[in-house]
Amino acid sequence: MDAESEGRRRVVIEHVRPEVDGGRFPVKRVLGDTFRVEADVLVDGHDLLAVRLLHWPEGEAGAREIAMAPRGNDVFVADITLDGHGVWYYTVEAWVDAFATFRAGLQKKVDAKQEVRVELLDGGRLIAAAATRAAGDDARRLAELARDLEDELLPEAERLERLLANDTAVLVARNPDRSLAVRAPRELAVIVDPKEARFSAWYELFPRSTGSGKHGTFRDAEARLAYVAELGFDVLYLPPIHPIGVSHRKGPNNTLVASPDDPGSPWAIGAASGGHTAVHPELGTLDDFKHFVRAANEHGIEVAIDVAFQASPDHPWVREHPEWFHTRADGSIQYAENPPKKYQDVFPFAFDGEAWRTLWEALRDVFLFWLEQGVRIFRVDNPHTKPLPFWEWCLREVKRREPRAMFLSEAFTRPKVMYGLAKRGFTQSYTYFTWRSTKPELERYLLEVSSAPVAEVFRPNFWPNTPDILPEELQHGGRPAFVRRAVLASTMSSNWGMYGPAFELMEHAPRPGSEEYLDNEKFQLRQWDLARSDSLRHLIARLNRIRRDNPALQANEGVALHRTDDDMVLAYSKRSGDSVVLCVVLLDGHHPHGAWLDLDLPALGVAPGDTFQVHDLLGDGRWQWSGPRAYVHLDPRVMPAQIFKVRRFERNETGFEYYL
Amino acid sequence: MDAESEGRRRVVIEHVRPEVDGGRFPVKRVLGDTFRVEADVLVDGHDLLAVRLLHWPEGEAGAREIAMAPRGNDVFVADITLDGHGVWYYTVEAWVDAFATFRAGLQKKVDAKQEVRVELLDGGRLIAAAATRAAGDDARRLAELARDLEDELLPEAERLERLLANDTAVLVARNPDRSLAVRAPRELAVIVDPKEARFSAWYELFPRSTGSGKHGTFRDAEARLAYVAELGFDVLYLPPIHPIGVSHRKGPNNTLVASPDDPGSPWAIGAASGGHTAVHPELGTLDDFKHFVRAANEHGIEVAIDVAFQASPDHPWVREHPEWFHTRADGSIQYAENPPKKYQDVFPFAFDGEAWRTLWEALRDVFLFWLEQGVRIFRVDNPHTKPLPFWEWCLREVKRREPRAMFLSEAFTRPKVMYGLAKRGFTQSYTYFTWRSTKPELERYLLEVSSAPVAEVFRPNFWPNTPDILPEELQHGGRPAFVRRAVLASTMSSNWGMYGPAFELMEHAPRPGSEEYLDNEKFQLRQWDLARSDSLRHLIARLNRIRRDNPALQANEGVALHRTDDDMVLAYSKRSGDSVVLCVVLLDGHHPHGAWLDLDLPALGVAPGDTFQVHDLLGDGRWQWSGPRAYVHLDPRVMPAQIFKVRRFERNETGFEYYL
Repeated sequence: MDAESEGRRRVVIEHVRPEVDGGRFPVKRVLGDTFRVEADVLVDGHDLLAVRLLHWPEGEAGAREIAMAPRGNDVFVADITLDGHGVWYYTVEAWVDAFATFRAGLQKKVDAKQEVRVELLDGGRLIAAAATRAAGDDARRLAELARDLEDELLPEAERLERLLANDTAVLVARNPDRSLAVRAPRELAVIVDPKEARFSAWYELFPRSTGSGKHGTFRDAEARLAYVAELGFDVLYLPPIHPIGVSHRKGPNNTLVASPDDPGSPWAIGAASGGHTAVHPELGTLDDFKHFVRAANEHGIEVAIDVAFQASPDHPWVREHPEWFHTRADGSIQYAENPPKKYQDVFPFAFDGEAWRTLWEALRDVFLFWLEQGVRIFRVDNPHTKPLPFWEWCLREVKRREPRAMFLSEAFTRPKVMYGLAKRGFTQSYTYFTWRSTKPELERYLLEVSSAPVAEVFRPNFWPNTPDILPEELQHGGRPAFVRRAVLASTMSSNWGMYGPAFELMEHAPRPGSEEYLDNEKFQLRQWDLARSDSLRHLIARLNRIRRDNPALQANEGVALHRTDDDMVLAYSKRSGDSVVLCVVLLDGHHPHGAWLDLDLPALGVAPGDTFQVHDLLGDGRWQWSGPRAYVHLDPRVMPAQIFKVRRFERNETGFEYYL
Repeated sequence: MDAESEGRRRVVIEHVRPEVDGGRFPVKRVLGDTFRVEADVLVDGHDLLAVRLLHWPEGEAGAREIAMAPRGNDVFVADITLDGHGVWYYTVEAWVDAFATFRAGLQKKVDAKQEVRVELLDGGRLIAAAATRAAGDDARRLAELARDLEDELLPEAERLERLLANDTAVLVARNPDRSLAVRAPRELAVIVDPKEARFSAWYELFPRSTGSGKHGTFRDAEARLAYVAELGFDVLYLPPIHPIGVSHRKGPNNTLVASPDDPGSPWAIGAASGGHTAVHPELGTLDDFKHFVRAANEHGIEVAIDVAFQASPDHPWVREHPEWFHTRADGSIQYAENPPKKYQDVFPFAFDGEAWRTLWEALRDVFLFWLEQGVRIFRVDNPHTKPLPFWEWCLREVKRREPRAMFLSEAFTRPKVMYGLAKRGFTQSYTYFTWRSTKPELERYLLEVSSAPVAEVFRPNFWPNTPDILPEELQHGGRPAFVRRAVLASTMSSNWGMYGPAFELMEHAPRPGSEEYLDNEKFQLRQWDLARSDSLRHLIARLNRIRRDNPALQANEGVALHRTDDDMVLAYSKRSGDSVVLCVVLLDGHHPHGAWLDLDLPALGVAPGDTFQVHDLLGDGRWQWSGPRAYVHLDPRVMPAQIFKVRRFERNETGFEYYL
């Protein structure tokens, strides 16, 4: 009750949406999206409201403004197109529309043939007030109208007609009284990412294993680009490309002692030749890397590099900036540990140390350095072991310079931390998909990651394997398991990825008793026979082509589950505009199954009585279906899945030339 | 990144709950409640956290503080008892517990028989730091311990033992390092209302109809108190008791012309003898009213008065404060209208006029005046036609002076407005119950009003009728409908009310084609024969007794629906601690039904294999049930409902004296 007009502001604006945590974090969209904003706008009584959506890209002075339309139940809605990358802000402003309210009441009185002599004068007052707010021609016309309404010499019917005219309504609405307008308490934000943030296919590759018998280089890896492009991937992700530490270097299969020939783990970052902004000499030079990036781009591929914020004991920063590390009571630098386990080849940074500010800036500058080299996609290693406030600051800083930058969070940790990282700016995230195998697990997880509130901030990237994880299902499931996991990952999530060539060559031997690969490339060079006849490369290429041809698979919206009468047969669909895809996946790798589906027809955009065609984009079969019941048969030894494109418009006799 | 330490604060506190709209509005509880607060508290990595709930009643300097316990999935929880009326604030503070983290790691290293020489020194550093934070004896003991840990002459085993001792942990925890503590961004609030806010039974009565043949007075109404108490009601609500306007006074059945003998509508407030702080002379004096209030209190009844913020054309304020009303272009005061309807006997206040501030204060003072007279419960007429910001301010002002004040919102309007009024301070609200008749409607509405987010702010008060509403179900349904509606209202909602004696005497004649009573007491005096043998007074008394005897019916928590195989048989239960009540209601007023129930046993607190007893508190029958399937039979001509008290502990042979 401080401002003189505060008590006169009757309109209440609540629950402007989308929003995350009351506006604490931005929601996420991609370039070109139609962005729908809704708000509850209330006022006492029956007065009509004028409601506006204000929105502006960061840094733009002055808000753009469009009207929000009432949709019933006190909800107002407006759509805008997000036509620029970066952060956009939006909020809602509303006021009682006194003239519109008056006009609607007057019309009812006229319809009921009531006396409206005083109403003509009331209307004149409102129009005279509008005249004082207007300028130029509007001001002149409004003032004239106000005078006429008071002119008793003019016939009442004529004055009434002019008062109720549409022109008058438009004229007054163009000069509204916003003196008692109310604005939503908080400005909300949306991050507009490049389209690849929502739709991408990642391939992870160790360049050092492309050298046919010796340590591979970027030049060798260039020869692999055509293969990766043929498989249909558009992001090629490289493990850390920096000099590898020598102290406490790990040997093959993560053994504690390395021989002089062992290449070491690329995640032990930093050696005499440099740290996070240097290139490992055995891979080539920085120029070689930049050449590799350009070559990839020519194949339609973006290169993503790994950013792992930790140092080997040989990292130059250990000597130059001891204040960026934790020091123990005996003066030594604290190595990583998870008691009783010790990781003496890795020094964590002291993100919360007294020198945090210079450290944070140096780490941000790592991203900025690689942006300069032509890289704008980063896979961030273990972000959940670095403070959440650091990421919020750092990713914002980087995106401010390059709004098309993207960050994939490699956090396999507790759900609130994973979602917390996404809220603080990670563009995409690894997920629990890797461990979701059964029908209820897959169904629940698909719904969780494709619905609000998760979907407003968290973009899943489904990986069937990584160099760190060879899940049990792939260890024991044989070819049907690899095919099934590739189909699930590539259709359930619009972002997916794989670690190859281990995946397409169905590498499945674990270090005994573990979920890790035997003879893991993390610790040694590997040779892969890409031409093997049992390779899944053609299937994977087909999956990526299906994704590119069907917009429904390029987002995670319009997701629906469909009941089946078989607990091993999973059915789900996605819909985006006219594009509808229905996937049926057999989870049993051993036996053929026949199953009845109970389709959610509205989710498929099919009317109850319609006949429709489904076209299996994997096996190329076509079926005519009608109504919600449909039969499928899947044999894991042939193909454990069907990806149906739903074609809703079925030809029948009425389309035949002579029918009419 | 402004403050020097900001980047070092790694802990993140999110989603402190309960909360409403991100903390914009307080949640509601009643005196004596155990209040559970939860929060998501996250930190990178595996460090242990110290988390505190801070809470304080409004006006108290300095927060009380208790530890919040981890409950898994990054959730921390604490319970406090709300032991005073009024507004309480709460928030969460957390920090990394460096010593607890260090100690847990050290214990694991010791268990793995690792060398811990440097750890002893690291521990000494932490303890020395604690010593500098401590005072008195703690400071002395910590400093001594820090010295000993560095003392190489003491055996390592002994130093280790002292470092790991529980005493040491307690000592350090008592002197924590909170320099990098983080506090939740917002202080949340809870309104602690009197217990009657949650559990009350209201009876509405026109005192002027208690006069046996002439206009009744407060003295006459006193004679009715014993009857109301016998029926078991604890709030007696009176329509407006103020002088009634003469201009445009309405006649019987809302006719436009009144004869000189017609008493007029009590909602046309204000006449020569006074306005909102005066008493209608025909009812008696202010002293008579105060006597009536005291007499009611002696019967265990609180008197609630009606507060209708509008004026008859004869209200003194019309002359004294024309600035509090809207003026038309011809200088006349704007009467109420909803075009084309006109209500010329009522002038609305100009809540948003330029004189809003003095008007608002005068209206607040109406509440304060009646508080002085011993009234603290107010039924507020049509609050949805007055601005939401006014209510937020006004109710807060009144509650600041009398935290036990209660306000029942008479808003039958759009849901967001009804809930919006509740958020802004109304203690209870009328509901859509009056129009919810079928099983799906009742089930859906019961869940809506008994679950978050609605239940955090909105306390339903279920009324089967009001002087304004005689629903069709009661017009045509006969005695079974009245019984059914009374059972539903009194058991679904812990607050219920009725307009009597019209209800218990099953008055059901409408003004033709309307939902209004014929010969409505709003416009004329009525005589009621309370002794009629078909009166529902004994049933109603029984319902109120059942409510008082069963805590489950005194709140709207622990609500569950139970499936039945009959669409006309509704089954729902409530549970509060050991008290469990299951209600089965037949919605068909014509035919007897037998039905099978499919009980949600966990909701009843019954283990799957247990036999349990149900005791029908209406018919007094008892049954032994076992498992989820149970049979009921209901005859609408006898009793269309059963209210089962669920007694979980069944006697069997093991309790028999000779069994062992």
